[in-house]
Amino acid sequence: MGIVVQKYGGSSVATAEHIKAVAERVEKAHEGGLDLVVVVSAMGKTTDRLLALAGEVAKDPSPREIDQLLSTGERQSVALLAMALHDRGVEATSLSGPQAGMRITGRHGSGVISEIQTERMRQLLREGHVVIVAGFQGMNALGDVITLGRGGSDTTAVALAASLHADRCEIYTDVDGIYTADPRIVPAARRIPMISPAEIAEMAWRGAKVMHPRAVELGALYSVEIHVRSSFDEGPGTVIREGKDLEHLETRETLAGIVHDLDVSRVALTGIKTGPGTLSRVFAPLAQAGISVDVIVESAPKEGAADVAFTVRRADFAEARRLTGKVASSLGGQVEGEENLGKISVVGTGMLNRPGYAARMFDALGRAGIPIRMVSTSEIQVTCVIPAERVEEAVRRLHEDFELEERDV
Amino acid sequence: MGIVVQKYGGSSVATAEHIKAVAERVEKAHEGGLDLVVVVSAMGKTTDRLLALAGEVAKDPSPREIDQLLSTGERQSVALLAMALHDRGVEATSLSGPQAGMRITGRHGSGVISEIQTERMRQLLREGHVVIVAGFQGMNALGDVITLGRGGSDTTAVALAASLHADRCEIYTDVDGIYTADPRIVPAARRIPMISPAEIAEMAWRGAKVMHPRAVELGALYSVEIHVRSSFDEGPGTVIREGKDLEHLETRETLAGIVHDLDVSRVALTGIKTGPGTLSRVFAPLAQAGISVDVIVESAPKEGAADVAFTVRRADFAEARRLTGKVASSLGGQVEGEENLGKISVVGTGMLNRPGYAARMFDALGRAGIPIRMVSTSEIQVTCVIPAERVEEAVRRLHEDFELEERDV
Repeated sequence: MGIVVQKYGGSSVATAEHIKAVAERVEKAHEGGLDLVVVVSAMGKTTDRLLALAGEVAKDPSPREIDQLLSTGERQSVALLAMALHDRGVEATSLSGPQAGMRITGRHGSGVISEIQTERMRQLLREGHVVIVAGFQGMNALGDVITLGRGGSDTTAVALAASLHADRCEIYTDVDGIYTADPRIVPAARRIPMISPAEIAEMAWRGAKVMHPRAVELGALYSVEIHVRSSFDEGPGTVIREGKDLEHLETRETLAGIVHDLDVSRVALTGIKTGPGTLSRVFAPLAQAGISVDVIVESAPKEGAADVAFTVRRADFAEARRLTGKVASSLGGQVEGEENLGKISVVGTGMLNRPGYAARMFDALGRAGIPIRMVSTSEIQVTCVIPAERVEEAVRRLHEDFELEERDV
Repeated sequence: MGIVVQKYGGSSVATAEHIKAVAERVEKAHEGGLDLVVVVSAMGKTTDRLLALAGEVAKDPSPREIDQLLSTGERQSVALLAMALHDRGVEATSLSGPQAGMRITGRHGSGVISEIQTERMRQLLREGHVVIVAGFQGMNALGDVITLGRGGSDTTAVALAASLHADRCEIYTDVDGIYTADPRIVPAARRIPMISPAEIAEMAWRGAKVMHPRAVELGALYSVEIHVRSSFDEGPGTVIREGKDLEHLETRETLAGIVHDLDVSRVALTGIKTGPGTLSRVFAPLAQAGISVDVIVESAPKEGAADVAFTVRRADFAEARRLTGKVASSLGGQVEGEENLGKISVVGTGMLNRPGYAARMFDALGRAGIPIRMVSTSEIQVTCVIPAERVEEAVRRLHEDFELEERDV
């Protein structure tokens, strides 16, 4: 019989009632004859509450102790889910990350799974138990708890599916799948039944908060089929896998969807002298300050001078402008910036074989009179940086223009 | 330099402010040059809150999962205390029970410490760290979390003090020591500066909720000197140790104090045929039902029939009466009971050498017109079961009669 890994996020186990509902769903799958490993996040706002408590006792809590503290959230929810399953007559055993054999290396708060010792899980599955594993955590060689950082429970689930050779990994969340655009902005947006890991990774990085890109990449690496479903209904959700079968390729449309992000600022260095090491001089201070840079555009140099522009989150705008201002002066240039921007991207592996998507996107935005501040493209996406207040309009226009609501996705 | 184990109970770490106050106290002791191991309980009502949550998801939660769940409370408080110490510039490392090397055998919820692997703690102490250990918990051979049951954190602290050969174990609580009687009832009650393990064990079993008897017994077994102090002031508290030194023996008064308990019911079987196995037939059903029996009195048999009376907690009264009612009928007797009773005990090792304490107690109660329902004595205590509504009056009268407020204890 096949093994299936299910993962339930914090909103799916937010209260005792939610946990009982998850138990009911797990029981059904178990009765269907599946060997189940269930990964659970901390209940609702538990992690935020614990972080607030840490902030009350210390100005700058140590990462090791933060990991000790936060890892208790998942330990609580796995124990509670096991109890709720027992209450339904289902045999179940909860395991913390260390008990489940999750061996982690790397730094506290951003650990990397190095090995999963699956013996105990396999033994419990053989005994007919549902195995419930605390997401987001494991143990290093010293016996210390290390957490995996953002998206950690998704990563735990996909890594378990890979090492247990599971049939699939089901990610239960508060949405019923991945959409062609944000349904709150585009009411005609449609659920995507199947999508490739590359597409979902681009969509996730570009602001669709369905599943963490790290977990998607891990799934792609180990060919784990991932199903994103709602924990509140019985819909089929979205399946993430490589579209290698012919049927899929032939019926597959070229564009997966449109994603957007409203938290974008742009910093531009103009007229700076370019040469070897220029970009490094611009971006090294940002990296040191822990500022993430997203889109980067460098103009072709003219008479030894060029323009470099990049985007950062709005919270980092002032600091990024200050840091690069110094660099710009030392390179004989100036710095300018624009704070209230957004990004919009069209994503799809089909774009590989059919050029012209970028042009069509620029055309649609141009006809709507929406100014494009920056452009960035990869093999499977085109991104435009535009004024934040025009983003929603742009999403609707592109969704219509690319006929996403009319396709049988 | 000597090692000292400190233990802070749930009320001492109830909020972020409390935890910061504990950190200040720990810092002072650490600056004084002590090697410190600090045992912490779960914050305030955390354990109750988690148990309530368990009750919401399952009617009869499994002991293993209850242990998984409850052990997170102490894990949180040790991490928070470590952070608060870092914030003061004190090097500190938190350890869960398993990380601290607490190896436990026995059943979930009532584990027994089998071994403490102290290497990691000793290494951290050598490096100058304050070691903070989660009380109440450890790990069995399977890698599962086992809790120690009631008074578990006290037991953890005393066991650590024994295995680390600590100079002493300091138990910080919300009272500033052990008193000759409950100060809420007897305003003239006095703090006892020094008391023997035997006395404190009797006082604890008899209802003075200062320290768990199990921890006291462990301390006596391994000659750990225990200091009971308030975590809210700087008083000397009460020292628990064998009074072997001459000075102590000579100045030591005979009576340690008076303790009472308001939650007592009495069940009596009258006129039952006695013979070998009678008592076993009476008490086996109670043990099976998990009902704790305290004072037991059997009258001398007259014409082959005797009376047996015992006390139980009020919550167990109806069930105990029902169970023993059947036995009484089968033995040709009857059952009667009295629900609203209390107990009052005078405790002191000095009673060993000076008889007459029981008589003096009966006399005092008699003069006050307080009826005595049952009597039980051991080498170091005399206990009378009396009506619950007369208990407070009896405590005051005995405290005065035995001149406890006037002695230089």
